[in-house]
Amino acid sequence: MSKLRVGVAGLGTVGGGLLKLFADERSRLHEKMEVVAVSARDRGRSRVADVSAYRWFADPAEMAAQADIDVVVELIGGADGPAKAAVETALRRGAHVVTANKALVATHGVELAALAEASGAKLLFEAAVGGGVPMVKALKESVAGCRAGAVAGILNGTCNFILTEMESTGRSFDDVLKDAQKMGYAEADPTTDVGGFDAAHKLAILCAIAFGTRPDLAHVRIEGIERVTLTDIRLAGKLGFRIKLIARGASTDGGVEMHVRPALLAFDHPLANIGGSLNALVVDAEPVGQLTFIGRGAGEGPTASSVASDLMDLAEDRASFAFGKPLARLADAPRAAPTERGRYYLRFMVGDRPGVVAAISERLAHEEISIESFLQMPVHEGPAVPIVLTTQTCARAAVERAVKAIEALEVVVEPPYVMPVEPSARAFRPS
Amino acid sequence: MSKLRVGVAGLGTVGGGLLKLFADERSRLHEKMEVVAVSARDRGRSRVADVSAYRWFADPAEMAAQADIDVVVELIGGADGPAKAAVETALRRGAHVVTANKALVATHGVELAALAEASGAKLLFEAAVGGGVPMVKALKESVAGCRAGAVAGILNGTCNFILTEMESTGRSFDDVLKDAQKMGYAEADPTTDVGGFDAAHKLAILCAIAFGTRPDLAHVRIEGIERVTLTDIRLAGKLGFRIKLIARGASTDGGVEMHVRPALLAFDHPLANIGGSLNALVVDAEPVGQLTFIGRGAGEGPTASSVASDLMDLAEDRASFAFGKPLARLADAPRAAPTERGRYYLRFMVGDRPGVVAAISERLAHEEISIESFLQMPVHEGPAVPIVLTTQTCARAAVERAVKAIEALEVVVEPPYVMPVEPSARAFRPS
Repeated sequence: MSKLRVGVAGLGTVGGGLLKLFADERSRLHEKMEVVAVSARDRGRSRVADVSAYRWFADPAEMAAQADIDVVVELIGGADGPAKAAVETALRRGAHVVTANKALVATHGVELAALAEASGAKLLFEAAVGGGVPMVKALKESVAGCRAGAVAGILNGTCNFILTEMESTGRSFDDVLKDAQKMGYAEADPTTDVGGFDAAHKLAILCAIAFGTRPDLAHVRIEGIERVTLTDIRLAGKLGFRIKLIARGASTDGGVEMHVRPALLAFDHPLANIGGSLNALVVDAEPVGQLTFIGRGAGEGPTASSVASDLMDLAEDRASFAFGKPLARLADAPRAAPTERGRYYLRFMVGDRPGVVAAISERLAHEEISIESFLQMPVHEGPAVPIVLTTQTCARAAVERAVKAIEALEVVVEPPYVMPVEPSARAFRPS
Repeated sequence: MSKLRVGVAGLGTVGGGLLKLFADERSRLHEKMEVVAVSARDRGRSRVADVSAYRWFADPAEMAAQADIDVVVELIGGADGPAKAAVETALRRGAHVVTANKALVATHGVELAALAEASGAKLLFEAAVGGGVPMVKALKESVAGCRAGAVAGILNGTCNFILTEMESTGRSFDDVLKDAQKMGYAEADPTTDVGGFDAAHKLAILCAIAFGTRPDLAHVRIEGIERVTLTDIRLAGKLGFRIKLIARGASTDGGVEMHVRPALLAFDHPLANIGGSLNALVVDAEPVGQLTFIGRGAGEGPTASSVASDLMDLAEDRASFAFGKPLARLADAPRAAPTERGRYYLRFMVGDRPGVVAAISERLAHEEISIESFLQMPVHEGPAVPIVLTTQTCARAAVERAVKAIEALEVVVEPPYVMPVEPSARAFRPS
């Protein structure tokens, strides 16, 4: 069999890592394929790998149009612009595409998969979700005979790094974020990561595959980690919980519900001990039960490895459909309402005056909310004192009413903060 | 495309689970395949699923010979006998085989893969290793572009259940084993599980795929959990370790080294918190880093799910070679010697007399072994007292000499017990 001819668009960290992997004599990539062309904006920039042996294209779409390129690897990024143009050009003429671009796939996945199906090309994106962790393949192929009921993951390494660092060093969100930016773990504009948008892109992709539905990014409820304070992390810890940004999707008879939000996880939850920049996914499917996948969620090596895995699938002719099934068989799932009942964590910043605890607990009792644990400790600097509590299982609407009533108390000096308590592993079952 | 016609040989727990999955209207199996025949010894026996609709064969090899069966699912078990006969019959005539039989694959994998290659059939065995956890596919396909340096896993649910129960309930090995037998978690003759042989079969298969070598069961060094006592579990716990049966393979320039043995894991080791009957695998490969896979390691649902995943790969025409590569490209790896240096746990049962600690520590010092932690506690019933210690990194041969010298002391009343301390996650790197 002749070798697959690969063109690589985008020569940043991941592109460099991929070229290094191709240059490694012990890699199996050689047996099956070769890089013939590359595209990046600046030909002269020094890079981790020598690119002088490859044909050079300043325009990735021009490279994607070359008839002698069998696979375009798109590592440019961004939901639109040159990345989309290059991918569309390749798929239209029947060339395969391997991409690490979660924004592109979450936003335009359906139209790109349609182009691929029309021309007989494959569109693969293992590297778009979970870095080196084979989440896409696991959902497409390993649980292919099962019914997936829920997926829950830690899908953004930047947020997980920040939360882990805050907990282990006792430093503030802003402080840790600045360091993460210096070390290259966070972008200069960190909104995409800390706002939860990057995790939402990944969740929309995973849910499409897991539940056999069209990707529906607009339906993901998104809340970032910006309001999580050191106080929350410390006091939640005293109550037996760790705070993580959780991306969760569930399929029920009512439809699909997806959200990204900070949540409290009991220490024995399978995702509670995923630290630093690791990514992890828990899949709950019948009859296999709960499967957990953990690994490095970003960076040169892990992401290049996932690109290489897709390339090997193409070279060995075993690549499946973009979302696991032909587009025509993907359902348009109704959007399910968020869960009506659950356990919640509430944080109030109050003036240190007699009767505060009584006032708060009265408002909760009025809404028939039972308190599971209640904690007031002198951990905060400044005039206000934090009071945090977790509820027993109760109606979300009741919590919203109670919090509104408590916020109206004169003694409450900041808007209250509410986070859900993630269902425990045992309760984490498909419906 | 016409549907794949499947024959199922063996209608025990897993076979029943598979037929239930076929009977589930929401499963995708229907779209692609149908069960047309079954084989089991006793037609009349009541089963979890109704089998009256399928053709019946008392002899699985006879079923495997039927020209209208495209895939034979072998769930009989055993390295030889009817299982082997049925699998050979199918592969010879070009019918695919999906099997959960680790003994068969570890023992006869090469000759069976050769039959498959000769006839153009596929031989798949995701269900043979790790129950529902897709370890085989991950190694074959997801790290296909990487170089795997080491795999380490908890591959036997029975052993893991026994060790977990001993720790959490404080009951003895014999006591917990009896219960496990009553609950069906352990066989009447538990040797295959507690002796480490089942885990060794699985390890030989995983190492073949991970390192691109022929499976070499005879080369796995095997030690079971029979000598692990409650005292070991408790005192290791006080020193910050948990005891697990670890199956580990490593590929170095010197060859492949494989062993199954009880070992001490620091609480933060990725395998330390895998409890009960769960299975887990940690793969260390460059450049992806460390990947961890966790799930239920046995039983009806998980194993049937892995069989279904292989069937879907056949139906969607994406099944790879038995061991990931054509046989001709699998290497005959030299057998590497066991690691020369490491940290060790030593347990001595001694008479409670003055000078014991001095006598032991002198013998260790004589071999230049530094003690990392040392513990004597009154946890044992009877006249003898346990003394346990962990060493700093030292030569294995020195430990063997010191232990021999200590065993010769009159005050030592039982043969000493030595377990390795598993390298920490950070040290767990491919060479």
